[in-house]
Amino acid sequence: MKYKFLLSFLLCSLLVYSQDDEAAVKNMYNRSLSNGMSYAWLDHLSNEIGGRLSGSEGASKAVEYTKSELEKLGLDKVWLQPVMVPKWVRGSKETGYFVSNDQQHDLNICALGGSVATPENGVTGEVIEVQGIEQLKALESDRVKGKIVFYNRPMEPTVIQTFKSYGGCVDQRYAGAMEAGKLGAIGVIVRSMNLRLDKYPHTGSMTYGNLPENQRIPSAAISTIDAEALSSTLAKDPSLELNFKQSCKQYDDVESFNVIGEITGSEFPNEFIIVGGHLDSWDMGDGSHDDGAGVVQSMEVIRLMNLSSNKPKRSIRVILFMNEENGLRGGRKYAQEAKLNQELHIMALESDAGGFTPRGFSFDCSDEEFEQIKGWEHLFKPYLIHYFEKGGSGADIGPLKEEGMVLAGLRPDSQRYFDYHHTSIDTFDAVNKRELELGAATMTSLIYLFDKYGLKGKRSTPIKN
Amino acid sequence: MKYKFLLSFLLCSLLVYSQDDEAAVKNMYNRSLSNGMSYAWLDHLSNEIGGRLSGSEGASKAVEYTKSELEKLGLDKVWLQPVMVPKWVRGSKETGYFVSNDQQHDLNICALGGSVATPENGVTGEVIEVQGIEQLKALESDRVKGKIVFYNRPMEPTVIQTFKSYGGCVDQRYAGAMEAGKLGAIGVIVRSMNLRLDKYPHTGSMTYGNLPENQRIPSAAISTIDAEALSSTLAKDPSLELNFKQSCKQYDDVESFNVIGEITGSEFPNEFIIVGGHLDSWDMGDGSHDDGAGVVQSMEVIRLMNLSSNKPKRSIRVILFMNEENGLRGGRKYAQEAKLNQELHIMALESDAGGFTPRGFSFDCSDEEFEQIKGWEHLFKPYLIHYFEKGGSGADIGPLKEEGMVLAGLRPDSQRYFDYHHTSIDTFDAVNKRELELGAATMTSLIYLFDKYGLKGKRSTPIKN
Repeated sequence: MKYKFLLSFLLCSLLVYSQDDEAAVKNMYNRSLSNGMSYAWLDHLSNEIGGRLSGSEGASKAVEYTKSELEKLGLDKVWLQPVMVPKWVRGSKETGYFVSNDQQHDLNICALGGSVATPENGVTGEVIEVQGIEQLKALESDRVKGKIVFYNRPMEPTVIQTFKSYGGCVDQRYAGAMEAGKLGAIGVIVRSMNLRLDKYPHTGSMTYGNLPENQRIPSAAISTIDAEALSSTLAKDPSLELNFKQSCKQYDDVESFNVIGEITGSEFPNEFIIVGGHLDSWDMGDGSHDDGAGVVQSMEVIRLMNLSSNKPKRSIRVILFMNEENGLRGGRKYAQEAKLNQELHIMALESDAGGFTPRGFSFDCSDEEFEQIKGWEHLFKPYLIHYFEKGGSGADIGPLKEEGMVLAGLRPDSQRYFDYHHTSIDTFDAVNKRELELGAATMTSLIYLFDKYGLKGKRSTPIKN
Repeated sequence: MKYKFLLSFLLCSLLVYSQDDEAAVKNMYNRSLSNGMSYAWLDHLSNEIGGRLSGSEGASKAVEYTKSELEKLGLDKVWLQPVMVPKWVRGSKETGYFVSNDQQHDLNICALGGSVATPENGVTGEVIEVQGIEQLKALESDRVKGKIVFYNRPMEPTVIQTFKSYGGCVDQRYAGAMEAGKLGAIGVIVRSMNLRLDKYPHTGSMTYGNLPENQRIPSAAISTIDAEALSSTLAKDPSLELNFKQSCKQYDDVESFNVIGEITGSEFPNEFIIVGGHLDSWDMGDGSHDDGAGVVQSMEVIRLMNLSSNKPKRSIRVILFMNEENGLRGGRKYAQEAKLNQELHIMALESDAGGFTPRGFSFDCSDEEFEQIKGWEHLFKPYLIHYFEKGGSGADIGPLKEEGMVLAGLRPDSQRYFDYHHTSIDTFDAVNKRELELGAATMTSLIYLFDKYGLKGKRSTPIKN
C-alpha cells in the first residue's frame, strides 16, 4: 500500500514537472510572438547599420548598438571582449565581361573575400572550365597556365538539406584560387553558391594557404545565370576572352570585439550555458539572415530568460561573435579565454542558418547526452519543432568543444537560404517577423531546459549566493 | 524449420517491399527537384495569365492552358467538366479615407468579393469599432444605425498554425456585413486577415445570406496598418467621418469548367484516387500561392505518376477545380457527378495552403485508415516531412466526403501565407522553386502509396485490361 502510494506520488510529481515545462515553453513562445524584441533589433541592425564586415565602420557600430541594447535588459553583466580581426575591403564595384563573336556579355560579378585585386585594367585571358578542383588537378599544367579557371560545379538540387549541397561545392570557392594559382592560372571565376538561377553574385571566404605572393591570383564569383551563359558560350567558342576587374585590398588586422551579456546563475554560477550568433556579416547586403537573425534571436533568448520569474540556476551568456565570416577570430578568442579562466561550459547553442521557420536542432554531443535531449522532444511538438538529430552545430562555438559538453545549432528551414547567402539581397525584407520570433522562442525553450536540468553526469559544486 | 523459413521469407519480402517504396519515393523527389515542370507552369499561369477570378477572362485562359498542358502529358483522358459559376467584378480601384481634425488619412482598401457597390460618391458616415460579431450584436441598435461598422479583431499571433488563427477571425469578413446590415449600418470595414502590419488590403468572400436587397450594405477590407491608424484615431476622436467608394457588381452566373486528366488504372480502373487544387483565384494578384501552386503541383503529381515504369493500378485523376474562392461550385459539381456515376473514390488530396516548404498532411479519415497512413510516415522522414495529423483536408474535395474514403490536405509551412493571401502581392516572385517542387514530390509520394496499397477494407473488383 505504502509502495503504491509512493509510486502515485512519483508519477504525479513527474506529471507536474512536465506540465511546468509545458507551461514554461508556451510562455516563451507567447512572449516572443506577442511582444518580442528580435524583429525591431534586426530592423536597426539591417536598416540603420547595414553590412558589418570585420574591421568596417558597420561592425563597430553593431558592437556599440548591441552592447547598449543588452545593457538596457538589466542583465548581471555586459562587456566587450577584445579580439584582433582581419580587415579586407572590397573597393570599387567589380566589373567583368566576356567576348565571343564580337558580342560582349557583361557579368554580375563580385570579388571573393580575401582575394587580391586585379591590375588596374583587369585580368584578361582565355577561360578553362572545370567541374571542381579534382578535375583541375587532373589537367596537364600547360592547359591551365596563363588562363582564367572557371569553376562551375553547381549545388546539387536533389539534396534536401541545402547546407549539405553547399558543403559539396564550396571547396571551389574556398580553395579554388589556391589550386589554380599553383598551376599558373592568372585568375579564377567561381559559379555562385546558389541553387536557383538568378543574377546575384555570392561572395564568401577564400584562402591562398601558404602560396607565395606571386602565385596569389584574383578570384571572383559570378551569378548562376552568368555561369550558365559562360559555360554554353564556351562550348561553342572555347577560345573566348574574359576580363574582370577588382580593387579589393587586405589591410593589417584591427581591434574589434565580441559582445557578451550574462545572467549569473542562482545555484550554479560556475556552470555556463551560452547562446550566440555572429555580429559580422559580408558587405554586399545587410546580413539580415547571415547572421543578423542569429544575433537578435540570441539577444531575445537572454531577454526572455531574464524575464522569467525564477532566476536561471546556471549562468547564461549571450555571445555576439565577431569575424565568423573571414577568420573565426571571435569564436577562437572566446574559447581561449574560457579555457584560460577554467570556466565550465556545459552547453553552447548557435543560430547561424538564417531567420527562417525553425525546424529543430542539430547536436554535437555523446549518445548519452543525446538521450537526455531526446527526452525533451515532445515539449516542442506543439510548435512543429521536429528535427532533433546529431550533426554539426555552429562555427563560432566549435572551438569550445570538449568532452562532456553539448554543442547545438538551430536548424531553420533551409530551402531559401542560399537564394540570399552572401549577396546584396540578404536584406531585412527577406526576413519574416514570425519565423524569426519562432526561432528565438525555440532556442529559449532549449536553453530553459538545459538550465533547469543541467547536463547529466556533469555538475559543478553548487554555490549558493 | 519450415515455419522458420517461411518467416524469413516473409521478413525479406517486407524488406524488399519497403526498399522498393524508399526507392520510388526518392525517385519522385529527384525528378521533381531536377526536371520538374511545376515552376514553369506556375510562371505561365501567374505571369502570362495572371488573376483568375471565376467568370473572368483569366479563368477562361487558365482552363484552356492547363487543359492543353495536360494533353501534352500523354494521359489516358483529359476533359472539361462544365459548371455554372458566379461572376463578380471589382470595377474601378476602390478609394477610402477618414478625416479627423481636418486631417485626411487615405486608406488602402479593397471591396470584399460579393459585396455590393457604394453610391457613386461613396458611403460616408461615423464609425463604430467592434472586436467581432458578438460584440456588435450586444450593442443597442441605435448605436449602429446609420454608421459604418469597423471590425478590428486581429489574427492571434500566439497561435502557431496560422490557418487556425485565420479561422478565428474570418467570420468578421464573411458575415460581418450581413450582421451589420440587419442592424441598419450603412457600410462595413474589416481589418485585413493578416498577421503582419503592412499596407496591403486582403479581399475574400463574404455573404449577405437571405437579407433583402435594401439591407445589403457595401463591405471592404483595409490594410492592417490602416486598421491600427483608424482605431487609434477613433480612440481620440470617436465622431470622425469615414468615406469609401467601390463600384463592384454581381452579374448573372456564367459557364466555366473543372479541368480533369486521368490515368486509367491497370488493375482497379474503377477505384479513383484524385489530386487537385483550384484554378480560380482572386483578382488582385496572380494567385500564385492561392492556388496556382496547388494547381501546378497537382499537374506535376499526375505527370510523375505517368512517368513511372509501372502503370498505376488504380485510376488517378488530377482535378483543377473552378470557383473555390467564391462559390465552391466546381468542387460540388465534381462530387455530384462522381456520385451520379457511382464512381468509387478511395482517396482525395488537395493542395490549397500555398507553395511553401511542405511539412506533411492533415487527414480526414477513420482511425483505422489513419493507422494505415501512419505506417508510411517513416518513408517521408528523409525529406523532413513530419506532420501527419487528423484534421481538415481541402474545400474543393470536401463535398466528396463519405465513409470509407480518405481526404487529405498538403500542409506546407504556414508562417508567411497570410502575408500574401488574397492580396496584390500574391505573385510569382513570392513562390520559391524548390519549396514548390518539394510539395509536388511529397504529394506524389502519398498518391503513389495509396495507389500501390489501396485502402484497407475497401476494394472494388479487379478488372484486368
